[in-house]
Amino acid sequence: MPSISKKGQLMPQSPIRKLAPFAEQAVKDGKSIYYLNIGQPDIKTPKIALEAVKFNSLEILAYTRSEGSEDYRKKIANYYKKNNIEVTHEDIIVTTGGSEALLFAFGSVMDVDDEIIIPEPFYANYNGFSTASGVKVVPVISKIEDNFALPPIEEFEKLITPKTKAILICNPGNPTGYLYSKEEIQKLAAIVKKHDLFLIADEVYREFAYDGNTHYSIMEESGLDDNTIMIDSVSKRYSMCGARIGCLVSRNKSVMQTVLKFAQARLSPPTLAQIASEAALETPQSYFDDVIEEYVERRNTLIAELLKIEGVKVGKPKGAFYCIAELPVKNSDDFAQWLLESFDVDGETIMVAPAGGFYSTTGVGLNQIRIAYVLKKESLIKAVHILKEALKVYKD
Amino acid sequence: MPSISKKGQLMPQSPIRKLAPFAEQAVKDGKSIYYLNIGQPDIKTPKIALEAVKFNSLEILAYTRSEGSEDYRKKIANYYKKNNIEVTHEDIIVTTGGSEALLFAFGSVMDVDDEIIIPEPFYANYNGFSTASGVKVVPVISKIEDNFALPPIEEFEKLITPKTKAILICNPGNPTGYLYSKEEIQKLAAIVKKHDLFLIADEVYREFAYDGNTHYSIMEESGLDDNTIMIDSVSKRYSMCGARIGCLVSRNKSVMQTVLKFAQARLSPPTLAQIASEAALETPQSYFDDVIEEYVERRNTLIAELLKIEGVKVGKPKGAFYCIAELPVKNSDDFAQWLLESFDVDGETIMVAPAGGFYSTTGVGLNQIRIAYVLKKESLIKAVHILKEALKVYKD
Repeated sequence: MPSISKKGQLMPQSPIRKLAPFAEQAVKDGKSIYYLNIGQPDIKTPKIALEAVKFNSLEILAYTRSEGSEDYRKKIANYYKKNNIEVTHEDIIVTTGGSEALLFAFGSVMDVDDEIIIPEPFYANYNGFSTASGVKVVPVISKIEDNFALPPIEEFEKLITPKTKAILICNPGNPTGYLYSKEEIQKLAAIVKKHDLFLIADEVYREFAYDGNTHYSIMEESGLDDNTIMIDSVSKRYSMCGARIGCLVSRNKSVMQTVLKFAQARLSPPTLAQIASEAALETPQSYFDDVIEEYVERRNTLIAELLKIEGVKVGKPKGAFYCIAELPVKNSDDFAQWLLESFDVDGETIMVAPAGGFYSTTGVGLNQIRIAYVLKKESLIKAVHILKEALKVYKD
Repeated sequence: MPSISKKGQLMPQSPIRKLAPFAEQAVKDGKSIYYLNIGQPDIKTPKIALEAVKFNSLEILAYTRSEGSEDYRKKIANYYKKNNIEVTHEDIIVTTGGSEALLFAFGSVMDVDDEIIIPEPFYANYNGFSTASGVKVVPVISKIEDNFALPPIEEFEKLITPKTKAILICNPGNPTGYLYSKEEIQKLAAIVKKHDLFLIADEVYREFAYDGNTHYSIMEESGLDDNTIMIDSVSKRYSMCGARIGCLVSRNKSVMQTVLKFAQARLSPPTLAQIASEAALETPQSYFDDVIEEYVERRNTLIAELLKIEGVKVGKPKGAFYCIAELPVKNSDDFAQWLLESFDVDGETIMVAPAGGFYSTTGVGLNQIRIAYVLKKESLIKAVHILKEALKVYKD
């Protein structure tokens, strides 16, 4: 039998999705599950986006331009302007989700065995994209005790080698919920300038900044045009994860010419979803105000309930809709599986994402889980109650 | 300034899209253009597919499963059964176009510096996916004189090294229009079995087989379950290139487990397009009968007109909707650009794809172009007339 590639063998399994078979079995066994594992919001997609698709008059579902239509990109540039980011449509390439934007960025600036420094815990699929690209992730640990703030910049500096090509951050952070301050972004700016590196920022949760904090983009930093690559997506902003539309933004012309070649090889991003995404840009501010209010309330509820459980530590997220919780267990992988297979409270259980997969360093985060607070307040209260009861009886 | 990756520098520019700026200028200069360069059919998408999207009742445009919904995959398996291909939904992973299926296949079975043998001329983006994956394309030349039939199997055998992991074919062929016979497929089957290689077949033009020929899939060949990977797409079948839905099909369980990891890393294929694609499977046979009749007529017209031009050679395509034509010019790249920049007949000109980009061997195919016969018969006649007049005056 011909064999699988080494790369394929090394591809990590998504920590968010690997428990799916156990969840399926739990459902078959008659349990109902609170899904805290996946960042699929229950918030409705703006009507204006859905209706644009319903009332489209296409007779041929044709390719679009590889970089996305000029009209759509001009409107995106206009959206950025409102967010203090000055770019033109030529600095934007529309991608099939933020995922593809990351893959294109990795391919455009890194070769096999090159290194990328990422504060961990980080979005688990960064591991997948790195493996697919043959790139080595060099992690810098951020700590729950510090609320997952940017590690001291000297820690980054120590890790820079001739192979280092980029630093990648997620801001606000998935899975930490941490929102980097302007000062933290400026420290990163200084170090990438000094060492001639790219600074890649995944800013898909831009709108989800709480408690009066405002998001500061790497694209707002002056003098950094050649170094910055921003990753974006409509998935979370408009609760349209299934659209699979994102974009890559950079003022570095060589980067954009290179990304365009990757984009042309895959022809174009999905047409129907671009129609929805273009219309979504007209979503009224009231939609976001309501959504943010809802998430803040959910976060406050979740954190308050979690802190009532003895032995549980949790950071206070300032953005996005995730938090990392440290549990009094040895191995959250086993615990998460046990919750689905062997535990319930009145026929209900919870599905959580073991946090080990959000770290690149082996053995770190094994007693942590990621919780996505994408469920209603009442459900979150019930879910945390189940967690509390589970911890009372679980032995590892 | 931080530098672009070597991979990014090596990424080829799509031969189909690199003339776009000249075309834009030509349109600005008031010329109208017959687009013979790109495989975007003018055939209408089946109503049943478009209406499924228009009448969908989703309130949240959510992720689907990474491998595509079970319902949709079961329906795809049923479609294959009607085409003599016996697979279950577990042998199918839905992808974002055939492009992504190719990328996943390359990533799952090949590492950097591994080799893949491909008869050339081949679909130009195979070069892009190979470069993105760090894989080396080893071409076997097929010839216009032989109508681009499978080169003698000994030519393949000569090229097999310890680095060879797969043979890739496109059947029916883009850009050649050649339809491999059962005997040719069986020769390939024997050689991949003998040398323990994968046989990857891009069969996205399955329905487009003319003159009473039937398509023979690699999946119909028995005893080859561990070796075969089929690439498919709804793009051409239902004239819905902009959906960006395809799939990867294999009975090799290790391949499927590995591809699933790549699929999970990018979360899911586009949701709206999956709704359209699932509905498209109900397209009545009469739609295809009409489409095939139309393409046969276009092909016959195109070939007849081309053969009237002195010094032009052309294969007779038996499938898909492309042909390669050899022209009495030295460099079809320059010629294609000149057609847009400096030539017109009564304000009209043509855009063709220079064939050099469809070869991996440097310097081969420079006097050839690819023509996509995706325009109405009358337009094809006018377009070939323009080509004829152009060749009378062009000097290189």
